[in-house]
Amino acid sequence: MVFDDKDLRPVRGMRDLTPEEYYPMLQVFDKLARIAESFGYLRIETPALEYYEILKAKAGEDVINEIYYFKDKAGREVGLRFDMTVPVARVVSYRVDVPKPIRWYYITKVWRYDEPQHGRYREFHQFGIEFLGTSSVRADAEVLAVGVESLRAIDIGDFRIRINDRRVIDQLLSKIGVTNEVKPSVLRIMDKRGKVTEDELLRMLRDLGLNNDASQEILRLANTSETLDKAIDSFRELGVGEEFIKYHSELIEYLDMYGVRNYMDLDMGIVRGLDYYTGIVFEMYVPDYKLSVGGGGRYDNLIEIYSGKLMPASGFAMGIERLLEVLEQRGTLKRGTPQIDYYIYVVSNEVSHLSLGYKLMRSLRANGSKVVIDTGEKSLRSALEYASKINVKYFVIVGPREISQGVVKVRDMSNWSERDIPLSEFGLNT
Amino acid sequence: MVFDDKDLRPVRGMRDLTPEEYYPMLQVFDKLARIAESFGYLRIETPALEYYEILKAKAGEDVINEIYYFKDKAGREVGLRFDMTVPVARVVSYRVDVPKPIRWYYITKVWRYDEPQHGRYREFHQFGIEFLGTSSVRADAEVLAVGVESLRAIDIGDFRIRINDRRVIDQLLSKIGVTNEVKPSVLRIMDKRGKVTEDELLRMLRDLGLNNDASQEILRLANTSETLDKAIDSFRELGVGEEFIKYHSELIEYLDMYGVRNYMDLDMGIVRGLDYYTGIVFEMYVPDYKLSVGGGGRYDNLIEIYSGKLMPASGFAMGIERLLEVLEQRGTLKRGTPQIDYYIYVVSNEVSHLSLGYKLMRSLRANGSKVVIDTGEKSLRSALEYASKINVKYFVIVGPREISQGVVKVRDMSNWSERDIPLSEFGLNT
Repeated sequence: MVFDDKDLRPVRGMRDLTPEEYYPMLQVFDKLARIAESFGYLRIETPALEYYEILKAKAGEDVINEIYYFKDKAGREVGLRFDMTVPVARVVSYRVDVPKPIRWYYITKVWRYDEPQHGRYREFHQFGIEFLGTSSVRADAEVLAVGVESLRAIDIGDFRIRINDRRVIDQLLSKIGVTNEVKPSVLRIMDKRGKVTEDELLRMLRDLGLNNDASQEILRLANTSETLDKAIDSFRELGVGEEFIKYHSELIEYLDMYGVRNYMDLDMGIVRGLDYYTGIVFEMYVPDYKLSVGGGGRYDNLIEIYSGKLMPASGFAMGIERLLEVLEQRGTLKRGTPQIDYYIYVVSNEVSHLSLGYKLMRSLRANGSKVVIDTGEKSLRSALEYASKINVKYFVIVGPREISQGVVKVRDMSNWSERDIPLSEFGLNT
Repeated sequence: MVFDDKDLRPVRGMRDLTPEEYYPMLQVFDKLARIAESFGYLRIETPALEYYEILKAKAGEDVINEIYYFKDKAGREVGLRFDMTVPVARVVSYRVDVPKPIRWYYITKVWRYDEPQHGRYREFHQFGIEFLGTSSVRADAEVLAVGVESLRAIDIGDFRIRINDRRVIDQLLSKIGVTNEVKPSVLRIMDKRGKVTEDELLRMLRDLGLNNDASQEILRLANTSETLDKAIDSFRELGVGEEFIKYHSELIEYLDMYGVRNYMDLDMGIVRGLDYYTGIVFEMYVPDYKLSVGGGGRYDNLIEIYSGKLMPASGFAMGIERLLEVLEQRGTLKRGTPQIDYYIYVVSNEVSHLSLGYKLMRSLRANGSKVVIDTGEKSLRSALEYASKINVKYFVIVGPREISQGVVKVRDMSNWSERDIPLSEFGLNT
């Protein structure tokens, strides 16, 4: 039962992460975790599988179609999670003992049955935070600030966060004459801006039964974009209600205090594909990369849907694979695997010599070094070649000549210089 | 659409890991990763989903029945991985560029549709190593040594590794008159030793068509257990072939060089439930905990099944949830979440005061501290209560009185002592 090469590849849309691919990702994980923790966020994890009813409660049609859904052996309807906001909302719905507000972050895998392409995988990693149990404008500012500091920490270079507000869009759509029934569909169409042509968008809007004027106005709205400084003026021009103008003025003030205001734009076309948002929504973009590298917003009703109890919340998620693609594009991705400090090669098969080799390994390991010991199957030449491939710093030869002189030969793999080092320097006697 | 409390719980047999549960696990991950890396192992990760054909190729009947199996939207037969040995074997089958031998480790989730009970979850974490591309006895000794050092690193206390050899069992079963066709079933029955009664085992063996004498002999074999020092004598008594006696003598010699021999026993009843093993097999046990906390062995044919190319290999996996249960039982589990260094509370809503609070936060964060800033929704008293619950070290009050004096009030949460600290000490001016 030998498999074809293609049958040995990972499941379509998923990736194997060998050390060469995984360590650069682990380094990014580490930097992001540090930022989240520096703002007082604590890490959580939940099962890959969720009950399907939980997943689809407030996901929105497009995402529901992307769920890996199946029935387990007992006939339970389950699915692989498509984000972490839904599982987190579920957890806080029954874990009523956790002190509020709750600052949680995660770095973990999610799954979406999407059409695989650059930056879109069917299994991918997300880093994100959820700030639960507060409806303060300061919370929204904090979430955005953590987003900025996270992107800064991984040295991604230029980026912009494009902010919008579901409440504002809702109000403006009402003014245009869009009914509440049609609004979710209009939002889904607005979310397709940039992915399909404007003619296509207009056609989709008219297919919903909207007249030409309304469709044109929606398109104009979706194309309204300003630096954040001009957001309030734009809002006034559009006739946005005073309560939202007040909120956004304050938000800008707090973003300023966090020192992150200059990273932000207003973009009335950002609506997000998920149904659970209720307040600000935002997406993160970098130049010369078409897809958003992250996004989020406020979702004040999601937990109420699960538990019946009100708990306002705000958060974001970033796509790790996309961040790595950007770093790679920009040539700033840190490649390579951890260095091995010592490779020990015992020349003979004599027990006393081998014994000494293992003693040396144990002594070096006890001092915190990373040590590989040869398995006795390679010639000295091929062991040296191998050591150079696996990123070894020092190659140590334990040979009869050296042992008789109470030394080992140590080769610095960076410049191939060799010297004899007395065994006593490693705390060993012969 | 409000859910019942029971509908909000994770999928049966799986666990939510809030920070209280997750940080103790993350600490164990960290210690295990350090050990693996100190022996030169590099971390890998593969997709949760594998093609079903790959998973079931050499899993063995019992495990195949536990696979979370389904068809994706395109009708592909897939399943959640039940271990990492199979995915790793698949990866090295097509990644022919990786220098051999390969030392890889993983800390990740696997899934088995098992009957949930203490120590048995349907989603759980495994730490493990795979040493691929070498058939040296030194490799087997290294794998066992990494196992010992891993268990030592997490301070698990006493433990034993019980070793056996599939080749030896195979030879001895042949001597008893067991045919090759029946052997896999006999191994599966031997693997049930300790889980069902001896009478039950005998009945199962006789149901296979084995006579009473053969069944009794198999049972006696499964009950043969010695310290490793007496293993060679036992092998000779049982009539084990010289080639295996030589192998095990050498293995013991290398285990001695690693300083781990005294952790080992010979246990002829250890056969492992997975079909892919071909040489030594072993399981790790601690006193007063019924289930094995880890296990592994040599699997020289698995990669050949995938790629047609021979690649000998050896490895182990440990169950993280079980390790944590043992640590908990022994009272040595390190509990608690990371400490928050500062909690900043601004007393007024005046912009200049708030500004100062945020400046202080940014200055403390820039110096590497973990800082939470209040969202303005709590009274001072309830903010103090909250800060004490989320493990804050210093509570900082930015109030009008303090600001007018160019200080902030800092309360040490461990002893409730307070003192005024000049803003200049934080690099700030008023």
